Amino acid sequence: MTLIIDLTLPIDEKTPVFPGDPAVEIKQLATIAQQGWNEKRITFNSHFSTHIDAPFHMLQQGKKLTDFPPETWIGEAIVIDARGQQEIEPELKGVKKGDFVFFCTGHVKKAYTKDYFKLNPVITRKTAEALVQKKVRMVGLDSFTPDNPPYEMHKLLFKHDILIIENLVGLEKLCGKRFTCFVFPLKIKDADGAPCRVMGVFEQ
Amino acid sequence: MTLIIDLTLPIDEKTPVFPGDPAVEIKQLATIAQQGWNEKRITFNSHFSTHIDAPFHMLQQGKKLTDFPPETWIGEAIVIDARGQQEIEPELKGVKKGDFVFFCTGHVKKAYTKDYFKLNPVITRKTAEALVQKKVRMVGLDSFTPDNPPYEMHKLLFKHDILIIENLVGLEKLCGKRFTCFVFPLKIKDADGAPCRVMGVFEQ
Repeated sequence: MTLIIDLTLPIDEKTPVFPGDPAVEIKQLATIAQQGWNEKRITFNSHFSTHIDAPFHMLQQGKKLTDFPPETWIGEAIVIDARGQQEIEPELKGVKKGDFVFFCTGHVKKAYTKDYFKLNPVITRKTAEALVQKKVRMVGLDSFTPDNPPYEMHKLLFKHDILIIENLVGLEKLCGKRFTCFVFPLKIKDADGAPCRVMGVFEQ
Repeated sequence: MTLIIDLTLPIDEKTPVFPGDPAVEIKQLATIAQQGWNEKRITFNSHFSTHIDAPFHMLQQGKKLTDFPPETWIGEAIVIDARGQQEIEPELKGVKKGDFVFFCTGHVKKAYTKDYFKLNPVITRKTAEALVQKKVRMVGLDSFTPDNPPYEMHKLLFKHDILIIENLVGLEKLCGKRFTCFVFPLKIKDADGAPCRVMGVFEQ
């Protein structure tokens, strides 16, 4: 049996927005009663909700989202338990070249509280360097960032064309598991990043 | 070898917008020079670019996007050649229950011209009824709509919880082919529709 698990945060007015960024706006543009159909108009930032960071987010010469070929978005993910680690430096056992490495921090449990953007766990330089050395394709986590200003770990990963996925959900039940993963960003041309839909597929 | 084909229209300022709808807006919100990172702010309608229509688009009691389980978005697609048919009524040979049925009309070639929203091909009632009878899961095409006002075919499909995908690209090379297809909409809660990323996966 195939089990499909959605690792994406839902988008609505309550979806957390990075401090200082303008909020998401969702307006009713048309209704069945008035125009004959329902339609909304939505406004958000390229780094909103569950999303991908492309290297161009922080490196002026970095690759943009649509510089990556379609093959980029389908791969093997491994979830590493990093709960309880304020500085994320777990053993990267089983991590292979090309992997999507997802750190389960549990921090996203605070997503709808005032504490989400406080005391977030961060990956250490040692972890970032090990991920570069292992030539992983993506690094994701269930928090809003893998590191804080001046974002040295972001930049280190970007220099090696490693993509970053932020605001994943549902990793707790997948710790230690390996699965086929689909990370499909909105196809915004030349973007620095974009919201994405992330699904894990498990053959059982 | 696995071949992945992207069937999604890119999003930029030139992406066609349904007549009467407000245009897409893409603004630079932050730059590396000023804030230390690049970030955009983007505004569009729920039925913009390559997108899914949920039944709630036209039926007040219809299912919303997030009423569909994750399994909905992965399936088997078949592309049917409907080029040259102003009224789409091809033989539905090989179409099975649960299929994503994509009609290749060729109309999307006009996407960036003033003629895109004119003389578009439409599926007939006979075709829509046959798709309902076959219990397909999605109906897609490389045009902006499968029918014109009063959208009777939209509503007929929606009544049977059949999803509609509009503005697909790249179907020409896939006529007659069957493949695993991933249609991942942006996870907008309770939405009537949403832009999506569509990929076909071919084992060769």
